[in-house]
Amino acid sequence: MNTLNLYNTLTRKKEVFEPLHAPNVGMYVCGPTVYGDPHLGHARPAITFDLVFRYLKLKYKVRYVRNITDVGHLENDADEGEDKIAKKARLEQLEPMEVAQYYIDRYHKFMDMLNVQRPSIEPRATGHIPEQIEAIQQILDAGYAYESNGSVYFDVPKYNKDYHYGKLSGRVLDELLATTRDNLDSQHEKRNPADFALWKKASPEHIMRWNSPWSIGFPGWHVECTAMGCKYLGKTFDIHGGGMDLQFPHHESEIAQACIANNAEPAKYWMHNNMITIDGKKMGKSLGNFITLEQFFTGDHPSLEKAYSPMTIRFFILQAHYRSTLDFSNEALQAAEKGLKRLQEAKKTLQTLTPGTNFQPTPTLEISLLSTFCKSAMNDDFSSPLVIACLFDAAKIINSAKDGKTPLLNDGIKALKELFDVYYTQILGLSDEADSNNSELIDGLMQMILDIRQQAKTNRDYATSDHIRDALTALNIVVKDGKDGASWSF
Amino acid sequence: MNTLNLYNTLTRKKEVFEPLHAPNVGMYVCGPTVYGDPHLGHARPAITFDLVFRYLKLKYKVRYVRNITDVGHLENDADEGEDKIAKKARLEQLEPMEVAQYYIDRYHKFMDMLNVQRPSIEPRATGHIPEQIEAIQQILDAGYAYESNGSVYFDVPKYNKDYHYGKLSGRVLDELLATTRDNLDSQHEKRNPADFALWKKASPEHIMRWNSPWSIGFPGWHVECTAMGCKYLGKTFDIHGGGMDLQFPHHESEIAQACIANNAEPAKYWMHNNMITIDGKKMGKSLGNFITLEQFFTGDHPSLEKAYSPMTIRFFILQAHYRSTLDFSNEALQAAEKGLKRLQEAKKTLQTLTPGTNFQPTPTLEISLLSTFCKSAMNDDFSSPLVIACLFDAAKIINSAKDGKTPLLNDGIKALKELFDVYYTQILGLSDEADSNNSELIDGLMQMILDIRQQAKTNRDYATSDHIRDALTALNIVVKDGKDGASWSF
Repeated sequence: MNTLNLYNTLTRKKEVFEPLHAPNVGMYVCGPTVYGDPHLGHARPAITFDLVFRYLKLKYKVRYVRNITDVGHLENDADEGEDKIAKKARLEQLEPMEVAQYYIDRYHKFMDMLNVQRPSIEPRATGHIPEQIEAIQQILDAGYAYESNGSVYFDVPKYNKDYHYGKLSGRVLDELLATTRDNLDSQHEKRNPADFALWKKASPEHIMRWNSPWSIGFPGWHVECTAMGCKYLGKTFDIHGGGMDLQFPHHESEIAQACIANNAEPAKYWMHNNMITIDGKKMGKSLGNFITLEQFFTGDHPSLEKAYSPMTIRFFILQAHYRSTLDFSNEALQAAEKGLKRLQEAKKTLQTLTPGTNFQPTPTLEISLLSTFCKSAMNDDFSSPLVIACLFDAAKIINSAKDGKTPLLNDGIKALKELFDVYYTQILGLSDEADSNNSELIDGLMQMILDIRQQAKTNRDYATSDHIRDALTALNIVVKDGKDGASWSF
Repeated sequence: MNTLNLYNTLTRKKEVFEPLHAPNVGMYVCGPTVYGDPHLGHARPAITFDLVFRYLKLKYKVRYVRNITDVGHLENDADEGEDKIAKKARLEQLEPMEVAQYYIDRYHKFMDMLNVQRPSIEPRATGHIPEQIEAIQQILDAGYAYESNGSVYFDVPKYNKDYHYGKLSGRVLDELLATTRDNLDSQHEKRNPADFALWKKASPEHIMRWNSPWSIGFPGWHVECTAMGCKYLGKTFDIHGGGMDLQFPHHESEIAQACIANNAEPAKYWMHNNMITIDGKKMGKSLGNFITLEQFFTGDHPSLEKAYSPMTIRFFILQAHYRSTLDFSNEALQAAEKGLKRLQEAKKTLQTLTPGTNFQPTPTLEISLLSTFCKSAMNDDFSSPLVIACLFDAAKIINSAKDGKTPLLNDGIKALKELFDVYYTQILGLSDEADSNNSELIDGLMQMILDIRQQAKTNRDYATSDHIRDALTALNIVVKDGKDGASWSF
């Protein structure tokens, strides 16, 4: 495939990607809710759309917006009542923004470790209250929302008469009406159980609150993405992405909001990554079976047999197609670790290969075909597993050349280097792991070298001890001999 | 000094620090304007208040707010006119938030390298438009501001009749009136030249704009800090900090705004770090003599003789008291580099010292006095240069013990370790530099070891080659012998 095809959830088929305003591409992805430590479930959408971002950037000028949902549900202790809280010094109160900032910093830290590139813009929900109020007002003015007791709700049945609520998720409104349950305290405010909140009046204990034309309160969950997507990417942009669990009600409601507020479909292509499962069940907080990224990196969790490096986690995720479920197991992670290591070593070996003089080298054509396969795989809905399979084939060729069985010509080596540079490094975003134990390792190696040097001196083998001294000098390392043995410094 | 004393710009004297709501402490510091790459002038306030934050945290529960000024002055090409711009797709337009996000990410990256801890909350000006509009409305309602052609100005002479405009900076309003010049286009809107903008109506080419009761526009520079300080720290908080160049008009105006909008002094203590100079002149963009942090770290600037590491920059800044000017020169930076290295090596040596049996060891009392001196220095308005001087004294003691001249008792070693842990690591925030060339170094050391091993094999010195193999195995390194020599992997 020479052109990019991607699976559009909206049409339920693969479509040729044609940007609305080439060479510009706008992509909006639902980011984290920052009230908990980032876990494996956060890593999958981040890495999936990082893959998309990296690939699109090779051809287009991409503006990638990934929001931060920091409108939280933190509440003060209800027992204290509003008065007592008001009397407390501001500083003595729980400040939701301090909690949010903590988890934003943690999210960035772990995404950096996973080599996920920062989006072009990372807007926060709390930073766009006026834009959200404006969108709500437009929906009210158009007659598709109503105010009830200081809150504002979207009128889903009315919308569904004129448009189609369910076009993305395939849900049918009548069935929804029969099964929807909501928290009791707002159910009586709604005309219909399927209606969703655009603005909620704050209860006394709710500590994130803003003025609005309707009440002191806070925006509903879905409206932030409508307001921020439109603000930074325009009324209709190219790609809207997120986890599959966001299809309904979040993305379905975003479409409804945008159709009324902006009179436009928000996105041309909708992309959804599938879920991570554990023993066949969805990994999630409610099931108590989720594992944080920090736990993966330290190995400190009862379900983990060992620690797994950030690049192992990234590779594990990329080894599955983003639309397939991905089942967590120690076996699968260890297989990913082994596979990644094979590629890392092949990449390292590649740097040391010299062109062979054998009469039957691996044909350069075969190598250039690998590059064609990789491109086709990416163009076929970002098929990272196929790209990885191609890289394993390349590793075989490299190892065979290293063993002297099938040497490579200069062009072949060059083509393999380019293959790894483009697909392994740039597109899959696999980096050579920065080993946090480097300084320990350096100490170990230096100790070994100083021991050998000492032994050489004892043996009056001055050729060796002089060689060591000179080689260390070349590395800017100074050795000082002291009473208790030699020490070294830079 | 057993209690913390700090110099309060407001009273022009050192005062005992007494928090308003101990054990809580609220501190607000003016952060970066994110429309340029971070330079040395950004590093000084960040490191100064990082020192304060780190020290206060040892005793108090500190909420440290440092804002990001992302309300910028980016304009579309005026020649295009409003209509043309409106017709352009959103994606094809310059998006100020994309520029801001880029520089926010750069700022974080370089502050992390300088080991500056993240503040508790990092609010953005654009994320607090409703709060700013509210503060402006309160000032209007109180009669200390007026609307003029869609903009809102603070009435400085009226405020000065009832309060004192100039109490922080020492400026005298009458003199200001005689000398103030402003940009011509807003001067006709003001009743007085000294009045400052609370809200500015946006000109057609201004691309950051919000609705307000007065016009589609954007907030004035000073009001963001009043709104965000109050929101996250309360009407009056403990410490307000920033660079000395912010005293006037920024901080003077913040006081005026808070006195009217909140009927309260915003901060009990005002702290200002002094400027960085170069050849005696202030380093700044306008003089074309500023150097970015990236340039320092790479050495890529005509004024730099070499690259300086992040910790050298940090140490250079901490070697001066924050209220003194700090003159940039290559000599001063190289002296800082040398001094830091001396402390780093002393700290390393300390780990290897064994208690001496000499009858005349360095008295432990002398060491514990160093700790007392360090504490007094910090309590005397955060005197980091004196703390560093104490650490140099400690380094002398350590080196003397290492040379066997004056050994240390167990208690002495323990006390020195604690001194370095508390003052060097925790308070001054000096970290052992993560050497970015580690992998190169490891490759170099491994090459040396493999050469020695090869030589030993050639010499039939199997004792040495076996020793090397075993020692490498202990470090989890596998050596493979191939046709073109040995290679290694983990």
